[in-house]
Amino acid sequence: MHIIDIITKKRDGGILTAEEIKFFIEGYTKGRIPDYQISALLMAIYFKGMTNEEATNLALFMRDSGDIFNLDSIEGVKVDKHSTGGVGDKVTLVLGPLLAYHGAKVAKMSGRGLGHTGGTVDKLESIPGYQVELSVEDFKKQVSEIGLAIVGQSGDVAPADKKLYALRDVTATVDSIPLIAASIMSKKLASGADAICLDVKVGHGAFMKTVEEATNLAELMVNIGKLAGKKMTAILTGMDEPLGHKIGNGLEVYEAIETLSGKGPKDLVDVTVEIGAHLLIQSKIESSFEVAKEKLHNTLDNGLALNKFRELIVAQHGDPSIIERKEELLSNKTVEFKSTENGYIETIDALKIGVAASRLGAGRETKEDVIDLFVGIDLHKKIGDRVQKGDVIATLYVNEKGVDEALALMKQAVNVGPNKLSIDLIKKTIQ
Amino acid sequence: MHIIDIITKKRDGGILTAEEIKFFIEGYTKGRIPDYQISALLMAIYFKGMTNEEATNLALFMRDSGDIFNLDSIEGVKVDKHSTGGVGDKVTLVLGPLLAYHGAKVAKMSGRGLGHTGGTVDKLESIPGYQVELSVEDFKKQVSEIGLAIVGQSGDVAPADKKLYALRDVTATVDSIPLIAASIMSKKLASGADAICLDVKVGHGAFMKTVEEATNLAELMVNIGKLAGKKMTAILTGMDEPLGHKIGNGLEVYEAIETLSGKGPKDLVDVTVEIGAHLLIQSKIESSFEVAKEKLHNTLDNGLALNKFRELIVAQHGDPSIIERKEELLSNKTVEFKSTENGYIETIDALKIGVAASRLGAGRETKEDVIDLFVGIDLHKKIGDRVQKGDVIATLYVNEKGVDEALALMKQAVNVGPNKLSIDLIKKTIQ
Repeated sequence: MHIIDIITKKRDGGILTAEEIKFFIEGYTKGRIPDYQISALLMAIYFKGMTNEEATNLALFMRDSGDIFNLDSIEGVKVDKHSTGGVGDKVTLVLGPLLAYHGAKVAKMSGRGLGHTGGTVDKLESIPGYQVELSVEDFKKQVSEIGLAIVGQSGDVAPADKKLYALRDVTATVDSIPLIAASIMSKKLASGADAICLDVKVGHGAFMKTVEEATNLAELMVNIGKLAGKKMTAILTGMDEPLGHKIGNGLEVYEAIETLSGKGPKDLVDVTVEIGAHLLIQSKIESSFEVAKEKLHNTLDNGLALNKFRELIVAQHGDPSIIERKEELLSNKTVEFKSTENGYIETIDALKIGVAASRLGAGRETKEDVIDLFVGIDLHKKIGDRVQKGDVIATLYVNEKGVDEALALMKQAVNVGPNKLSIDLIKKTIQ
Repeated sequence: MHIIDIITKKRDGGILTAEEIKFFIEGYTKGRIPDYQISALLMAIYFKGMTNEEATNLALFMRDSGDIFNLDSIEGVKVDKHSTGGVGDKVTLVLGPLLAYHGAKVAKMSGRGLGHTGGTVDKLESIPGYQVELSVEDFKKQVSEIGLAIVGQSGDVAPADKKLYALRDVTATVDSIPLIAASIMSKKLASGADAICLDVKVGHGAFMKTVEEATNLAELMVNIGKLAGKKMTAILTGMDEPLGHKIGNGLEVYEAIETLSGKGPKDLVDVTVEIGAHLLIQSKIESSFEVAKEKLHNTLDNGLALNKFRELIVAQHGDPSIIERKEELLSNKTVEFKSTENGYIETIDALKIGVAASRLGAGRETKEDVIDLFVGIDLHKKIGDRVQKGDVIATLYVNEKGVDEALALMKQAVNVGPNKLSIDLIKKTIQ
């Protein structure tokens, strides 16, 4: 088998066999096939696409390139969720305790963020003492005991994907639905969960700009998961504005605590409950989707899952008193961003808000950057809210850097106009 | 300027500016941009194409990456020709002396062959003593004095093209009309000629399989040349069977001598005269294309240009008595390939014949291979000729190796059937 023949075949619109996909993934991971041939192949895939079967094989062989976690020793259905990335998305922080409270087994390995906001483990590190690194044995033990662990990615998961992603990033081949789907699913399939719910973000603040392309991505990922024997659901949710009010690491933990205490913003609650209900059904803990949703809403409203969040913090060596002293999760230096007009908030560009938070120090621009865990943005107003000239639209929690730049970005991001718009949050379910 | 933006722009169907093309050619040639980004860009160009202006800029910046020859010190219009590569194509060997006899200035730098047959300079090396390497000064002096020099490529011509071509070869991005056109023209534009005639081969023995794609390539190259200030013509000629009868290095010099002596095969004569007439018009030596053709035919018929070939050999330190002792250009070990049927020759697959000659030793499979200058194939029959069972279709001039393999290839290449077909040789002229 020759890589040049595989490139030519894909260039000419052919369908690669499992053997051909295995050949190039193994050859590339082991350094037998050079970058320059794989980048040509990736560009050919960009133009010619892949069938469901090709994308599944790609995901499976990338999964097989590294560690695969076996969670069989944990009793029950192990659940996992994945978001394709949104601004202010702290769903995992709320959903984990919520599902564990309802008896599901949440064994969550999360990445660090690279880009405009931190990842889930970055956020959790704003809790004093919280350890994101556990041994695999301790991780499994914790899930068995309290139903929940949230740790950083350990081991060497899908190194083929890491190498391919780094190459795609510098060769303009990131934006390919089959490559995105296979990349996400290679890691999810390695994580050992039995049921997976994917939250595919749609809108100008997300990677997928239209419902159509988000649907294609979601359907492909659901297909890949099913072909690999997983229970799969995907929901499409809007990312036309940030999720919830708070953006930034400590700020998002703060908002998660509020939400677990029954005081969460509607959009965050709705997305969390939607994903949660799917996973409770797939775990066979509940049998009616509507009943599951109602129960989850009740649990949040009554603050019943907050204690599960406390158990999580304690189990991972953090200081649970942060729940009572949550103001410490916010920088004590603030700047207000005010409206200069009367009207309604018409747009809040999530991407620009994310970048603004990053400029304040909440995100990494290179792998080496150190995140400032306590800076970020608190949006008091969201799309459809009425504002008067002089009203505070957002409070910026700041430190030394980026304030002027962040304010300028806020100004570009937020548009006040005469129309009271409403947002369509949960757009579609794919099973 | 960032290479990732250039890749993205081309991927999305954008038109690259001169600055962007300069940036990636210079960056790649100087090693600042890695192979893997250029191969992704090449694949994007494969799919999205280039405008005439982009291809021209690409050719010009590749030309500018190396030595550019200045032939201004030679009086008159300097002419050059280029063939996109055919089997048995010894046109340069006949055309050079013919045009020089008619007063044109033929300053020809030729490559060595890589692939199924040798290049022009490989062929000339079958003449005892012939020196293919001349200093640039001696080269120009010889053209001024006798109107003709045929040497190997000297200096560092279009190193950007060399580097790009090597990458295209291993990334399935060779078959792109703008990349082929820019590659050929970058070298032609560096050669310093004023008038260039391109012979674009079409047919199953050629790189371009259809008249349509050959036309596209020819038009683009003519455009590039004109935009760079050259006088340009291209002709499309058939490569459905080898040109002339003889394939192999010494064999082709033998056939060139025969042709210059008035005993050349019709197809070789016709292509040579066609190209020659265009170049005499562009040199302003003749003003009527038909008259020019007639004069060139007369010169060949009467053997008047053979002496110019002798002058060429003498000037480049070869032994001109080879003209009288031309049998020495052929291996004295021969094998006959006979017909097993009665009928007409219907097909002679030029590519397979080329490979058969190469297996006998006439071509290089790697750069390091040493060519056997005296082996090859003499086709006694061509398409449309009548054969009886037992007739000799071809004589193979052989040495130690490849005889069985060559005979097997001959058998596949030649098809005898009931139909007397005729070939359309000169298909189109593009100016």
